Amino acid sequence: MNTYKSIEGGVCAAKGFKASGIYCGIKENPTQKNDIAMVVSDVMCNAAGVYTQNKVKGAPVIVTKDNLKRSGGKAQAVIVNSKNANTCNADGEDKAREMCVLTANALGIKPEEVIVASTGVIGQILPIEPIRKAVPVLAEKLSYDGNIEAATAIMTTDTIKKEYAVEFDIGGVKCTVGGMAKGSGMIHPNMATTLNFITTDCNISSEMVQKALSEIVKITYNCLSIDGDQSTNDTCVLMANGLAGNAEISSEGGDFDIFKDALYQVMANLTRMLAKDGEGATKLLTCVCSGAPDLDTAIIVAKSVIGSSLFKCAMFGSDANWGRILCAIGYADADFDINKTDVDLASAKGRIAVCRNGSGVEFSEDEAKVILTEDEIEIYIDLNIGNASATAWGCDLTYDYVKINGDYRS
Amino acid sequence: MNTYKSIEGGVCAAKGFKASGIYCGIKENPTQKNDIAMVVSDVMCNAAGVYTQNKVKGAPVIVTKDNLKRSGGKAQAVIVNSKNANTCNADGEDKAREMCVLTANALGIKPEEVIVASTGVIGQILPIEPIRKAVPVLAEKLSYDGNIEAATAIMTTDTIKKEYAVEFDIGGVKCTVGGMAKGSGMIHPNMATTLNFITTDCNISSEMVQKALSEIVKITYNCLSIDGDQSTNDTCVLMANGLAGNAEISSEGGDFDIFKDALYQVMANLTRMLAKDGEGATKLLTCVCSGAPDLDTAIIVAKSVIGSSLFKCAMFGSDANWGRILCAIGYADADFDINKTDVDLASAKGRIAVCRNGSGVEFSEDEAKVILTEDEIEIYIDLNIGNASATAWGCDLTYDYVKINGDYRS
Repeated sequence: MNTYKSIEGGVCAAKGFKASGIYCGIKENPTQKNDIAMVVSDVMCNAAGVYTQNKVKGAPVIVTKDNLKRSGGKAQAVIVNSKNANTCNADGEDKAREMCVLTANALGIKPEEVIVASTGVIGQILPIEPIRKAVPVLAEKLSYDGNIEAATAIMTTDTIKKEYAVEFDIGGVKCTVGGMAKGSGMIHPNMATTLNFITTDCNISSEMVQKALSEIVKITYNCLSIDGDQSTNDTCVLMANGLAGNAEISSEGGDFDIFKDALYQVMANLTRMLAKDGEGATKLLTCVCSGAPDLDTAIIVAKSVIGSSLFKCAMFGSDANWGRILCAIGYADADFDINKTDVDLASAKGRIAVCRNGSGVEFSEDEAKVILTEDEIEIYIDLNIGNASATAWGCDLTYDYVKINGDYRS
Repeated sequence: MNTYKSIEGGVCAAKGFKASGIYCGIKENPTQKNDIAMVVSDVMCNAAGVYTQNKVKGAPVIVTKDNLKRSGGKAQAVIVNSKNANTCNADGEDKAREMCVLTANALGIKPEEVIVASTGVIGQILPIEPIRKAVPVLAEKLSYDGNIEAATAIMTTDTIKKEYAVEFDIGGVKCTVGGMAKGSGMIHPNMATTLNFITTDCNISSEMVQKALSEIVKITYNCLSIDGDQSTNDTCVLMANGLAGNAEISSEGGDFDIFKDALYQVMANLTRMLAKDGEGATKLLTCVCSGAPDLDTAIIVAKSVIGSSLFKCAMFGSDANWGRILCAIGYADADFDINKTDVDLASAKGRIAVCRNGSGVEFSEDEAKVILTEDEIEIYIDLNIGNASATAWGCDLTYDYVKINGDYRS
């Protein structure tokens, strides 16, 4: 059994990755919170990406996909800003490409080796002048412990920065996977979510980087829903620079599985952080669907519950209104027998059965209240048909979600 | 051009329909608001229904479908309670059937000629004793102007009763269609929504009753979303008793189209009322998608916008954050070119263009604020591809939605 050790360092945890983040004034901001970040590898990386499936795609999404295609899956740097999504602007692609050129020139690499991303308000013209000034400064400030400056720069309505990293062992060689993420609203990924940058020093082929990322995105970011809104700018990239020095992973097998497990740990933990920091959230909701006939069914059912506005409100009120859970299971677009379904509610304070074979069972409302008053709640669904299971992450729906989104642009 | 005259009378507007509603105490309620209703036709009706597609089906849904099947599409009475959905209970079907037997006995008809419905909390045992006592009283109190008592009895978190009726003319004979509806939360119909009872004295065959209902449900109730949650108890029934005396409508053609237009007016107005009275709503949102290649695309796009939590919050805040509209159009599961899409915002105070060809256009924020501060907002989307159009109805997402649903059961 391989062991995975959680470590500090986020996107800089893996060998040979530097980062920086500064305030450049994309939008006036008296607190001068960082709004632009750079991540750079000392050497060229095998890189893979997954992106939003929204028909409205942010200009940076279009440019990054095109860059990775032109470079043959190679990348060495990331440039990313917050406060403006550079989406639905007639000049968006030109500006996203200019961000790549600026970064490439500052670093002495090619523009197509740059990953570009933006997050913030849709449909406002991106002010490029502050970015022109910022890029050389970012390049100047790059450091092996710049991860926190970078993680802070990509935050929008996030209340905490999101970083995670693990160390593990492949063939006696120490490897590291780490990453940073942002996202708090407009989160209902169908490919990736919001912005996620994962770095690793593991030596792994281009093909296997993409395969690992796609598989793990499906069971982590794609199982997250804050509000059902699929962003136009969702981007998740994985950069592998090979500096750990392990024998290259170029096919499926034991080493690939070890790498995927490490990637899962980083991405599942970032997903959990994203859910917990959902806009206005007071509670993290984790829904585990087991006993499913296949993985897709388990995912669809778990996500349906996590996405129910009524259920999310009930959790905000610590109300054991399990009928809403069953309702959301019932409208999930999957094939199973609702009359075999069991549901339990749990938290650090205990676990109770609320539904067996699709019907309610008696339970203590007092006990339920104690369990649901915690800030991390688990919902266990057993379809009692097969052996597949999946986890989905979300949060409660609160007054503050409405407040934050009633006037986001101001 | 046929004229349709809006009239009073709701579910009793059409000839030969009586109704009643009383408080029977299904749940303790100091205000003694009506919680059970009956609707009865003087003569047998051709009846049709559409129901929830949720796998979790309320026991009354199962029993009503079965009854209409056994009776060959005939029905003469409706019995309906609020405060308890009779759903996810092991004894639910037995109790729903007993409600039919009680009603049949009180009226001297067959149990399978009774339509039964329930709405309220899921997963709590339905107390049958109050209903046993109430049914004879309801039969006793039936009257040709009992529509308001009945419409009040089916309300749950509704703040206003919902009734609508129109008079029209078929072959020189005056006909009437009227109805009542309830629903405020857990509304995202996929077949019908919540509870809707439509009555008509028009003489129309069983087959054409079902055909008209299915067609009109698709472009009215099924284009309504309050919160994305599809109820377990959605039921919409149409009862036609033929007492107007027109020549029977037994095929498609001019008379059938006139009838469908009348049905559309009743159901579209009830849908609009349901949207406006959405849980916690302060604004009615009406989204019209035109220029679509086909009806289904128009419906999918209009519903996607109406269902976006972020857009709904923006409307609550009177914030012209049109990027969220474009985002929701972009994740709609339909095929069109987002780069041809235009969006306008409007209300009684005016209309402004916010997006042309998928990109933002300059507009006055002050003017937008004036328009969006109204309590009825229209969103016009033109896909600029074809000639199909559809309307979807919804409401804003507010603090009160969260409040109402944070502790619904108390």
